[in-house]
Amino acid sequence: VTTSADTLTVDLGDRSYPIEIGAACLEGLGLRLAGILSGRSVVVLSDSNVAPLYGEAALSSLRAAGFQADLCTVAAGESSKSLDVLSFVFDFLVRNRMSRQGVIVALGGGVVGDLAGFAAATYLRGIDYVQAPTSLVAMVDSSVGGKTGINHPAGKNLIGAFWQPRLVFVDTDLLRTLPRRELVAGMAEVIKHGVIRDEGYFAFVESNAEAILQDDPAAMARVVEGSCRIKAAVVAEDEREISGIRAHLNFGHTLAHALEANAGYGTLRHGEAVAIGMEAAGRLATERGMWSAGELNRLVSLLNKMGLPTRIPPGLQLDPLMETMRLDKKVKDGRVRFVLPTRLGAVTLVDDVSMDEVRRVCGDLIEG
Amino acid sequence: VTTSADTLTVDLGDRSYPIEIGAACLEGLGLRLAGILSGRSVVVLSDSNVAPLYGEAALSSLRAAGFQADLCTVAAGESSKSLDVLSFVFDFLVRNRMSRQGVIVALGGGVVGDLAGFAAATYLRGIDYVQAPTSLVAMVDSSVGGKTGINHPAGKNLIGAFWQPRLVFVDTDLLRTLPRRELVAGMAEVIKHGVIRDEGYFAFVESNAEAILQDDPAAMARVVEGSCRIKAAVVAEDEREISGIRAHLNFGHTLAHALEANAGYGTLRHGEAVAIGMEAAGRLATERGMWSAGELNRLVSLLNKMGLPTRIPPGLQLDPLMETMRLDKKVKDGRVRFVLPTRLGAVTLVDDVSMDEVRRVCGDLIEG
Repeated sequence: VTTSADTLTVDLGDRSYPIEIGAACLEGLGLRLAGILSGRSVVVLSDSNVAPLYGEAALSSLRAAGFQADLCTVAAGESSKSLDVLSFVFDFLVRNRMSRQGVIVALGGGVVGDLAGFAAATYLRGIDYVQAPTSLVAMVDSSVGGKTGINHPAGKNLIGAFWQPRLVFVDTDLLRTLPRRELVAGMAEVIKHGVIRDEGYFAFVESNAEAILQDDPAAMARVVEGSCRIKAAVVAEDEREISGIRAHLNFGHTLAHALEANAGYGTLRHGEAVAIGMEAAGRLATERGMWSAGELNRLVSLLNKMGLPTRIPPGLQLDPLMETMRLDKKVKDGRVRFVLPTRLGAVTLVDDVSMDEVRRVCGDLIEG
Repeated sequence: VTTSADTLTVDLGDRSYPIEIGAACLEGLGLRLAGILSGRSVVVLSDSNVAPLYGEAALSSLRAAGFQADLCTVAAGESSKSLDVLSFVFDFLVRNRMSRQGVIVALGGGVVGDLAGFAAATYLRGIDYVQAPTSLVAMVDSSVGGKTGINHPAGKNLIGAFWQPRLVFVDTDLLRTLPRRELVAGMAEVIKHGVIRDEGYFAFVESNAEAILQDDPAAMARVVEGSCRIKAAVVAEDEREISGIRAHLNFGHTLAHALEANAGYGTLRHGEAVAIGMEAAGRLATERGMWSAGELNRLVSLLNKMGLPTRIPPGLQLDPLMETMRLDKKVKDGRVRFVLPTRLGAVTLVDDVSMDEVRRVCGDLIEG
């Protein structure tokens, strides 16, 4: 029944689930779900960009497989990760008389996935959900691992839950309609996976940069499969970010969060901020003698080749950026926690980076 | 260090936790917490009734034991179980720079416990919390078992999570300041525990009704200990209400929810609605020949002796009540799910009660 080319597993005991990656498989979504969640009513949660493109296809597939299915559409963009929009989603679920046996299908990018997952985690104390990612960043990163949540004026993802999906269902053909800037932003997480865990995967991305930038189906299938494999392994080792292994995924994110907060959420794409954050972390690592300048150069070259920024954009000032970092929960006694590379394919958690070091590196990265 | 008279355990594998029941032990809260959660910062969540009575005692005890502790007070009453108040609590946690290592102490009744537990479940994807119940209903029922949540205009506890506390810390002396109506309402859950699981406990309450109504310390200690023991056993058997065992705790609740919704939340105390609901369920059971009229009489007599209502109060109309029930998620194809007694100490889940049967029994119970 499934048209998937590849099936991976996120191994979490009785919360294990498959990641299925295929091409042109969206029309098989209903049959695939019928295999595991037959007879349930389904709400497809999507956004104003994705719903017009794929909402009907998803609904048709689900209905043809015997599901009662309805579409709930929220505004595209980070602003939908709010308590207000969450409340709107709850209204929709109640109006559709969704019971504890109901299922939410997240059809969209990272925002839709995080919002849908958190709604599923907290509606009637938890219902099933399925990730059907449509953006590259969602396919390679955010749809896997059960981190769900919304933002609060005081912090991104401040409100959330660990709640694993029943299935991650990826149709790489959906990338064809993804705006180029979003595709490029997604590549930052892909490159991150190579740096933290797998030099071979990093090298594959280096060698296939042209094909990837042209959204070549075979290349993209390997990119999605490679990143999902790494993400699934990390999550299986440390689901709730306790041992520190899962924290490796935050490579590039310490500065990225401060950049996003200061640029205003949504101005800088998350992946773009991560790219800048990876160069900054890379410089910290080489300055400390932990990482070779040659490998840092490979990283920066690959980011640039992909069209990702590695400089802090004009308009962002050093002082407010440092103040945001100082208030971050990763800072303790003036020392900041960073994930720093030791070689391509390996990183380590360091929690004694001084604000002075951070300030110096960030100063060097400010444009103009 | 602990002054607890009794320690029970909620047995949930790596999420197991103790219930400690004592008298005049609130001042030992800090030392007790220091034994398991040393060095964490603590926010005590309480309400406008309880904070003036016990807020300072809790804070002093925590600070004396070396905790950084702050008090967050919400308005007393069911209306605080809302997304707005939850957002206010998140603001407080952020302003106090609460990290993932932070701890929330719920110092209050069921509303505070449910709200604090849900805030703990969803702040930074989950932090530790402790239940320090101050009402009888919280001591004997809601503080044990990890059901947390808030209300939504469309339904009570519609938004929530299963999130177990690290400790339930009960000081039965706090009952001295509980308004009598609240004490009586709490007795409905106590009586419920006897009916669903333990005739001996039911008989103890029958024999000690006078002492209980006078808030006799020895009697109340046995009441709290007996109910917590039953609740802990039920939760350990079916934490997430999957097998149906935990659903037994809903005895009396099918009608109670409809009564509360129609009376306006907070008008009828939850326990009062449960008392009426238990008489209704009892009548359904005897009409079906499942339960003896003699035992139903013992139940109704005990409820009345405690000062609990067993009639639907004036002002509530049969038609809107039936409509609320019809929309309830426990209704399927015109059949309602009820927990019905088969003998004192045993109940069974029945899902084929017709709306006609419900209507007849409710009609008989309407006053005037």
